[in-house]
Amino acid sequence: MQFNSDNWSGAHPDIVAAIAEEAARDGGAYGSSPVDLALNRRFSELFETDVQVFPVASGTAANSLALAACGRPGGIVLCHSESHVEIDECGAVGLQGDSLRLRLIDGPGGKMQAADLAATIAAFPKGHVHAGQLAALSLTQMSEAGTFYSLDELRGLAALAADAGLAVHMDGARIANALAGCDASPADMTWRSGVDILSFGATKNGCVMADAIVVFDPSLARTLPFLRMRAGHLLSKSRFIAAQFDAYLNDNLWLKMAGHANAMADRLRAGFSKSAAVRLAWPSDGNEVFAIMKTAHHQKLQELGAQFASWAPGPIVLEQDETVVRLVASFNTSEEAVDQLLALVADL
Amino acid sequence: MQFNSDNWSGAHPDIVAAIAEEAARDGGAYGSSPVDLALNRRFSELFETDVQVFPVASGTAANSLALAACGRPGGIVLCHSESHVEIDECGAVGLQGDSLRLRLIDGPGGKMQAADLAATIAAFPKGHVHAGQLAALSLTQMSEAGTFYSLDELRGLAALAADAGLAVHMDGARIANALAGCDASPADMTWRSGVDILSFGATKNGCVMADAIVVFDPSLARTLPFLRMRAGHLLSKSRFIAAQFDAYLNDNLWLKMAGHANAMADRLRAGFSKSAAVRLAWPSDGNEVFAIMKTAHHQKLQELGAQFASWAPGPIVLEQDETVVRLVASFNTSEEAVDQLLALVADL
Amino acid sequence: MQFNSDNWSGAHPDIVAAIAEEAARDGGAYGSSPVDLALNRRFSELFETDVQVFPVASGTAANSLALAACGRPGGIVLCHSESHVEIDECGAVGLQGDSLRLRLIDGPGGKMQAADLAATIAAFPKGHVHAGQLAALSLTQMSEAGTFYSLDELRGLAALAADAGLAVHMDGARIANALAGCDASPADMTWRSGVDILSFGATKNGCVMADAIVVFDPSLARTLPFLRMRAGHLLSKSRFIAAQFDAYLNDNLWLKMAGHANAMADRLRAGFSKSAAVRLAWPSDGNEVFAIMKTAHHQKLQELGAQFASWAPGPIVLEQDETVVRLVASFNTSEEAVDQLLALVADL
Amino acid sequence: MQFNSDNWSGAHPDIVAAIAEEAARDGGAYGSSPVDLALNRRFSELFETDVQVFPVASGTAANSLALAACGRPGGIVLCHSESHVEIDECGAVGLQGDSLRLRLIDGPGGKMQAADLAATIAAFPKGHVHAGQLAALSLTQMSEAGTFYSLDELRGLAALAADAGLAVHMDGARIANALAGCDASPADMTWRSGVDILSFGATKNGCVMADAIVVFDPSLARTLPFLRMRAGHLLSKSRFIAAQFDAYLNDNLWLKMAGHANAMADRLRAGFSKSAAVRLAWPSDGNEVFAIMKTAHHQKLQELGAQFASWAPGPIVLEQDETVVRLVASFNTSEEAVDQLLALVADL
Repeated sequence: MQFNSDNWSGAHPDIVAAIAEEAARDGGAYGSSPVDLALNRRFSELFETDVQVFPVASGTAANSLALAACGRPGGIVLCHSESHVEIDECGAVGLQGDSLRLRLIDGPGGKMQAADLAATIAAFPKGHVHAGQLAALSLTQMSEAGTFYSLDELRGLAALAADAGLAVHMDGARIANALAGCDASPADMTWRSGVDILSFGATKNGCVMADAIVVFDPSLARTLPFLRMRAGHLLSKSRFIAAQFDAYLNDNLWLKMAGHANAMADRLRAGFSKSAAVRLAWPSDGNEVFAIMKTAHHQKLQELGAQFASWAPGPIVLEQDETVVRLVASFNTSEEAVDQLLALVADL
Repeated sequence: MQFNSDNWSGAHPDIVAAIAEEAARDGGAYGSSPVDLALNRRFSELFETDVQVFPVASGTAANSLALAACGRPGGIVLCHSESHVEIDECGAVGLQGDSLRLRLIDGPGGKMQAADLAATIAAFPKGHVHAGQLAALSLTQMSEAGTFYSLDELRGLAALAADAGLAVHMDGARIANALAGCDASPADMTWRSGVDILSFGATKNGCVMADAIVVFDPSLARTLPFLRMRAGHLLSKSRFIAAQFDAYLNDNLWLKMAGHANAMADRLRAGFSKSAAVRLAWPSDGNEVFAIMKTAHHQKLQELGAQFASWAPGPIVLEQDETVVRLVASFNTSEEAVDQLLALVADL
Repeated sequence: MQFNSDNWSGAHPDIVAAIAEEAARDGGAYGSSPVDLALNRRFSELFETDVQVFPVASGTAANSLALAACGRPGGIVLCHSESHVEIDECGAVGLQGDSLRLRLIDGPGGKMQAADLAATIAAFPKGHVHAGQLAALSLTQMSEAGTFYSLDELRGLAALAADAGLAVHMDGARIANALAGCDASPADMTWRSGVDILSFGATKNGCVMADAIVVFDPSLARTLPFLRMRAGHLLSKSRFIAAQFDAYLNDNLWLKMAGHANAMADRLRAGFSKSAAVRLAWPSDGNEVFAIMKTAHHQKLQELGAQFASWAPGPIVLEQDETVVRLVASFNTSEEAVDQLLALVADL
Repeated sequence: MQFNSDNWSGAHPDIVAAIAEEAARDGGAYGSSPVDLALNRRFSELFETDVQVFPVASGTAANSLALAACGRPGGIVLCHSESHVEIDECGAVGLQGDSLRLRLIDGPGGKMQAADLAATIAAFPKGHVHAGQLAALSLTQMSEAGTFYSLDELRGLAALAADAGLAVHMDGARIANALAGCDASPADMTWRSGVDILSFGATKNGCVMADAIVVFDPSLARTLPFLRMRAGHLLSKSRFIAAQFDAYLNDNLWLKMAGHANAMADRLRAGFSKSAAVRLAWPSDGNEVFAIMKTAHHQKLQELGAQFASWAPGPIVLEQDETVVRLVASFNTSEEAVDQLLALVADL
């Protein structure tokens, strides 16, 4: 009953097999092997447009380097106040982006609202050197609160950014979960909605270690080879990442794994909705479930082998003996584990 | 006949098996799993002293973060003019080290000499703010020219650095080859010779992706968790690196692999010494062989399937139609491949 | 009727005379002249403790370098959301502080409240590398809203910071106005209240160009010589700044100038309080007055020669045709200018 | 007998008068006053082309910000191994330039030679991410060894740089001395010779504090307002720098001062050439004289009141009891001081 996070999960056998196969042969270093060289074409087909792909070692690397590619001296990135780049990356954007800064925008459900974005943009007149200059908008899909931006929402926010001359970045650490849960293509959810550059995460969704920056706007790809190299994120045996992506995209493995994780989260949500002891903290869409329970119940469930952690309550007003918890399902979460947890909850 | 580089090689089956085993189970993220938590003890036993280990995604990451841990504002790192940190890392030290700079010291055979180090140190009086302040000495073992520093040489250089208040870093991207080729223990070659912090490379020697910073001076470990995190080099599934190190150290696999690579290079060196068409550019000790041949011969051998690249001649004076080439043997280089190449050379 | 800002004002004749006197002789460069060398003693007497003084070229330089001296990798500085370092310095802290970040804390009247500071500190558990590590608290005295922190407020906030291991910085761009308006000594308002490092501004208060970092905690002074030099803020003819400070402190010139500016602002406040057309936006203490007037009135007064700009209303709720304006008095603001403006206001 | 450096000298009365005049009136802050706004036109006339001027607080600021404007991720600036940016600026280029690096090129007399520049450029193939990417060439006129590049030399070097896509920067901390000593116009020595961006120094030549970046290639001016602001080098009372430049350029004051300094250095050189005790270390052209004397003589002259310091001998081979010294003449060096020193030398 491991619901701590999807990066606690192992890796899919097909991913491991791809690594093993690559290990059995020699191949060009630093992105020069056949499987490396096929990546651009592979992702271009997936996204139905010409893209450039830059594998890196972590989601933090993908986010910070992608935003660095959008950077300007005195630059500012607009992002949600709960976004991973602000809360969980130890200032990586400031390092890779040469003192690029984040300006936070609040919003319910982990999502930014168009009016708030418009107001913030208006507060930064062009050429006012004291304030610095806006460089990019960063949106997280799915969001840190487990919610999805609709395509309309994405397009509205991206249009505001584009009008102000900002690049649009999407933190897609869990984009597979968003795509598996929507009726939209990868192209729809990204460049057709105005996204210029994407952090494409696969590590959380069944890979060993596979993250990449996918660049839709070719002007943003010019500095990336150098930004990535000086960051130590061009790996000598990068073909082992490329091979993972290859297996990941084969036969829609990635969407199947994400779809399974979402389904397991749905099963949790459905179970919780019938529970007297637990209620949902807020609605979520993908593989993350946020619930409110008594702190003592959380402790008891942990003692009984259910692993999941408490979470920042945000705007939620709790009773004193309550806590918000997050449960994350992943590609290898079993129905049995979910049902076992729900049984324990039913017994609370 | 792949002699391009040891990072062109695949990975050892034991390493792949360790990844596969880890993939089959869930485990704590960001270094909290059992195999992660055992790393410090494992390396402490290996080095016969208490060390702290920080796995990272690449050798460039290890070098730049290790040196950043030694950094100071206006800081300067002394290193050989052919060192990897200067030539091959795109300024990574300046990024991770917050504008830390490299000051180059020449020296024959890829090695720095004590008198030159002493003279350079003398040129930076303490507190002279215009020049900046010396922060660290970085030594590469084995060197970029394929040579080994003797323990006496290491101790002499490290003592000069320590007297001047500098931290001593060792770039050990190929330390396994140096250890396999010497009669010295890991402890002898590092902290007992005055090394404070080590880039411990395993990727080139049969791993998929496994590099680490090993810290002997605990004061240098204080900032590393934050330096690594903001660099995007704390991997969420870092247990897949830890598992590789585990297998790598088991039953001396690492020294066996490096010893094999060295032996294959010895076989090449022995063969070349009998050749009329090829001569050694300079003596080397480990798994790299530097040779001089006619450019036309280099081209012909490549056409016949022998893969190896030309190399900067450094101080070597060549005939006009000659070139310096580098051949690198690795854990999976076969005697057959070596002999096949030597046969082609004999036919030149 | 120039009330735009105190940095629009000229310079006091005594300051100019000090420059002229220094110009007539040669003297040591880079802080080695007699007037430079006397600065530490001069400021130590002023602050009744041993301090180290680092003149720099601007208030932004003083703030960013002082905070850089408190920096740590992945570091975070807590400051008010309206603070100059956030709003007006184009990310200088991130540059000088090697990707040091600002975390904003709201609070009425430009001041941070203890409960909010405590809650923010609590949100950053030590050693949680994802979030980064708290490095410093920055307080602005007088604040950007023209208000003073009382000594009790300063002590309370500084104590919370010290308990959490943070350095305490004071942005004293207008500390002279705060001191001239309070019954507190320079020592009381700074180190006796827990301030470790101070940006001591004189440029706005009658100097040509004179800012300095005053260090109370000697451990924070170790890196500053190098931080300042690499920033281009160690001036070759720094004795021209030192000479300004010398004249500035002579015979309490600085407090006389600031006291005059405060008195002129008082005169404005008193006048506005009798006006039907203008009301104070919020109470302020020093040489800045924030008022609400009809936008048309603002425009009319400007056409009649009164210079002052509109200001961010913050939490103030305005009528649609109203605006918040800021009027700043300085060392050379005349009673005549104030009365002339008040007469125009009376005629609105 | 002060020959330590031209930045030990005071300031010309006309410069002080300009400051005093500006001090007596109020004016726009941050470059918005009339004298600020006239700078671009003033310098455009001087250089016979449209330029943009960015006053800053120091020569180090000018150099590092100018090169930052030419920067690229993983970027490298080529400069002479004795250049001020390498030797005397504490890594400022790395800070302002976001880990921009310097690559040193040796050459006699403080000057780079075309063949060496060409060879270095050839060593950096475009797109080789490991090495980084060349960004700019920085030339110092007059050089650190007191020599002038001829226009032909400048054009040759600049053409090589331009062909390789590098921006060309001139460190003109003593450009006035070079211009006063040549038969070339400011335009000839800069943009007509291929210079894209210039550090225009006036501080050493009779100003209190006046340095500026002069931009010939408008594409390099786009980021400078933000680079300068985040560096703390946009001064609130920048009109006090602008006023100095105004007086500096009036009636050719700048060239008169530099011409006088050069003449005093000529007088020193002529005197030394007749001396048995002192000989020139190498030929120099402007206001700096490099001489070889016995260390005991240097000490004796200092005891007799002659101020000048020893200097790095570079390639000069000295007798054991000899030292190289540098003597710098400035705008206020008197014939009497020179003759007094020469008399002391004659008595050695």
